[in-house]
Amino acid sequence: IAKEVAKLLEMKAQLGGDEGKHKFVLKTPKGTRDYSPKQMAIRERVFNAIITCFKRHGAEVIDTPVFELKETLTGKYGEDSKLIYDLKDQGGELLSLRYDLTVPFARYLAMNKITNIKRYHIAKVYRRDNPAMTRGRYREFYQCDFDIAGQFDPMIPDAECLKIVHEILSDLQLGDFLIKVNDRRILDGMFAVCGVPDSKFRTICSSVDKLDKMPWEEVRSEMVGEKGLSPEAADHIGEYVQLHGGLDLIEQLLQDPKLSQNKLAKEGLGDMKLLFEYLTLFGITGKISFDLSLARGLDYYTGVIFEAVLLQPENDHVEEPVSVGSVAGGGRYDGLVGMFDPKGRKVPCVGVSIGIERIFSILEQRASEEKIRTTETQVLVASAQKKLLEERLKLISELWNAGIKAEVLYKKNPKLLNQLQYCEDTGIPLVAIVGEQELKDGVVKLRVVATREEVNVRRESLVEEIRMRTSRP
Amino acid sequence: IAKEVAKLLEMKAQLGGDEGKHKFVLKTPKGTRDYSPKQMAIRERVFNAIITCFKRHGAEVIDTPVFELKETLTGKYGEDSKLIYDLKDQGGELLSLRYDLTVPFARYLAMNKITNIKRYHIAKVYRRDNPAMTRGRYREFYQCDFDIAGQFDPMIPDAECLKIVHEILSDLQLGDFLIKVNDRRILDGMFAVCGVPDSKFRTICSSVDKLDKMPWEEVRSEMVGEKGLSPEAADHIGEYVQLHGGLDLIEQLLQDPKLSQNKLAKEGLGDMKLLFEYLTLFGITGKISFDLSLARGLDYYTGVIFEAVLLQPENDHVEEPVSVGSVAGGGRYDGLVGMFDPKGRKVPCVGVSIGIERIFSILEQRASEEKIRTTETQVLVASAQKKLLEERLKLISELWNAGIKAEVLYKKNPKLLNQLQYCEDTGIPLVAIVGEQELKDGVVKLRVVATREEVNVRRESLVEEIRMRTSRP
Repeated sequence: IAKEVAKLLEMKAQLGGDEGKHKFVLKTPKGTRDYSPKQMAIRERVFNAIITCFKRHGAEVIDTPVFELKETLTGKYGEDSKLIYDLKDQGGELLSLRYDLTVPFARYLAMNKITNIKRYHIAKVYRRDNPAMTRGRYREFYQCDFDIAGQFDPMIPDAECLKIVHEILSDLQLGDFLIKVNDRRILDGMFAVCGVPDSKFRTICSSVDKLDKMPWEEVRSEMVGEKGLSPEAADHIGEYVQLHGGLDLIEQLLQDPKLSQNKLAKEGLGDMKLLFEYLTLFGITGKISFDLSLARGLDYYTGVIFEAVLLQPENDHVEEPVSVGSVAGGGRYDGLVGMFDPKGRKVPCVGVSIGIERIFSILEQRASEEKIRTTETQVLVASAQKKLLEERLKLISELWNAGIKAEVLYKKNPKLLNQLQYCEDTGIPLVAIVGEQELKDGVVKLRVVATREEVNVRRESLVEEIRMRTSRP
Repeated sequence: IAKEVAKLLEMKAQLGGDEGKHKFVLKTPKGTRDYSPKQMAIRERVFNAIITCFKRHGAEVIDTPVFELKETLTGKYGEDSKLIYDLKDQGGELLSLRYDLTVPFARYLAMNKITNIKRYHIAKVYRRDNPAMTRGRYREFYQCDFDIAGQFDPMIPDAECLKIVHEILSDLQLGDFLIKVNDRRILDGMFAVCGVPDSKFRTICSSVDKLDKMPWEEVRSEMVGEKGLSPEAADHIGEYVQLHGGLDLIEQLLQDPKLSQNKLAKEGLGDMKLLFEYLTLFGITGKISFDLSLARGLDYYTGVIFEAVLLQPENDHVEEPVSVGSVAGGGRYDGLVGMFDPKGRKVPCVGVSIGIERIFSILEQRASEEKIRTTETQVLVASAQKKLLEERLKLISELWNAGIKAEVLYKKNPKLLNQLQYCEDTGIPLVAIVGEQELKDGVVKLRVVATREEVNVRRESLVEEIRMRTSRP
């Protein structure tokens, strides 16, 4: 009976599906959005700033397919694997949409036996999350990654990644920011000396990761209550994770009687010291904080980890500025490429991902009042009288061939007022007006929209005149 | 028994799948590819040329999600619907990867009640085809679309689309090309006067569409044999479809005793005449051919259709140059947006899609011998002696902050020879060398890689000197 019911339900569902063809639901899939021309203009501006920075640091660019073999993604994201979008089995290979750009990058390196590359990759990734879209989180969103792969002297590429974050966040003028830095080896060493059993390192690490959203008391009770950590160990961790500072803190911890006895922690602290020396040479330590509460979610990190947060303007009564969310993050992952290599050959990597969607949200909100041009048109080719479509088309063709960005209204006899209004609406700065008299005289009337100034320009000088008047100051 | 066998086979497959986790198959999914830095450099060059043209014509840009609700794509692509990639039903909405950019564009217009826009959209689309990858066809590939939507005076936007194809193909210097033009109304009128029954219009149209790949005799036998058309009707079509020419042919057909009696054909021919007048004003008729054999596959076209083909260089004994494949195509589709509007309100559209993948293939092949730079680095910061890492990092930080594109080797004590070799390999034109003596003197030694010329530049003038020496001629 159950089988029959299932069959009937399936048939009903199919019929329902057929009916659906006729009444379209006009929407984009849940968690996705279209980008309007105005949003695209903002997006392009942000991408340009970021790409300029990546290129300034000598990065190449690659691209990978939007889907990967399902098995390529398997076992890379821990619990989050349930958020991966799978494609329907339509025969052939089993495929999934990429979840980030790091795993495809590692696959690319292993597949092409590349042991040395500095590349960026800007592309969309997919997560079946239940995102709060008002907070600028989506199921389809851009990632913007810069990574350095290769065997190098310690902490030089790591320092460059932090310099890049510093440059981009400064360029974009999003307000004050802070880059928190830690090291997985210091965290693991700390867990060890606090008495956390090895088997609990990862789960306790993910509790620590919640400290930016929860007070310590709640995190502690999760550790002790849910995860069965001893209260002493938890309290011990609690002392460490409230520490943050700079070189002085590193020195202090290098003297810490327990931590300095732990091999991993000592290695991590030594490298952290070196990192701070390089960051001092780069002149950016003012916005860097060595922060023992920074843990980062992903499993694959093996060394330095970091995260940049925007700071709210200080209130009168608040001592320290409050963070309003992460806008960049990254770290070192020396083991990931080896997971793809048939012989397990490792390629050490360090990289940074710019949280472009949150940056868009901030800039979009700011731009909501601003008037943003969505085209770059320099001149509208217009006519004052009727029957001049042919002359307008001849002139605009000359302008296009000379590389001038020009538009014309697609009407045989548009009113001059409508043509001028179009310029006002879309921000076109100049109008080239042809009329009977101008044609006879071999000139074009060039009108500046903002000032209403009009000058007759000889036709052979028009291109030069438009260029001059629209070149950036 | 069959059921049990199926169950066992499935279990075996699952086990195989689990084993598979450990021996990774290192590949991209069938029909897809990674883009290497060199390929990306070519791709960027092509995109820049195309985007520059689209912007010259005043286009805005939009973006849409990579997947749509499955029902959005349903019933838009006729037989080709079987090539659509569906996502797995993981709960929630049923989704499919976009098959082209035109249907999402129409959905976007209807959803946002936009009746007037000129936009471009460059993005990847997905088709579960069995592509011949050597011929530059993939399951994941870029489309590069420019469309004009809105109610305008006839043929002005249509003419602009052809001007755009002409500009882009000229810019990219792919060799000689020809843009074939026809009109769905002329085709339908022709079918009517040839005695094709209404019900066979679409299927006979798709036979005609094969004329670029098959000789007429084969197409004719498909029409008569497979599709049951009368031999007389087929022969009649055969006379028309060999016609191609310009304004003179249009005039001739306007006088054609049968065709001129058909309302649709007359409308189409009248508009074709107008189109050629505009194309004459644009000065591009030399590369345009009104060709009655052009049919185009997609169902949604309603008016002008066109397709650009590259021509092989003429052989001695061949009278006409042979086409080597389509690199752009498009047409008018006045009904598509109405399919999405709840009240069926129409928004007339005309657009063009640049066949970017075939263009990549051609340019990639050409570039296989060329040396193409994949970075834009202007200068390598180097040192001649040991223990100067700190000085190199200080200097490169100054350069980055001044906007200079600079790299440094990630080694404490690299050999000068290796640093110079790196410049040779990657095409970096300048080396800024710090040494003990230079530091004392407050200078940097600037070396031109190509000529080996070396000059001492005062540190405060270094940025200006690098800019001057690397500005484009």
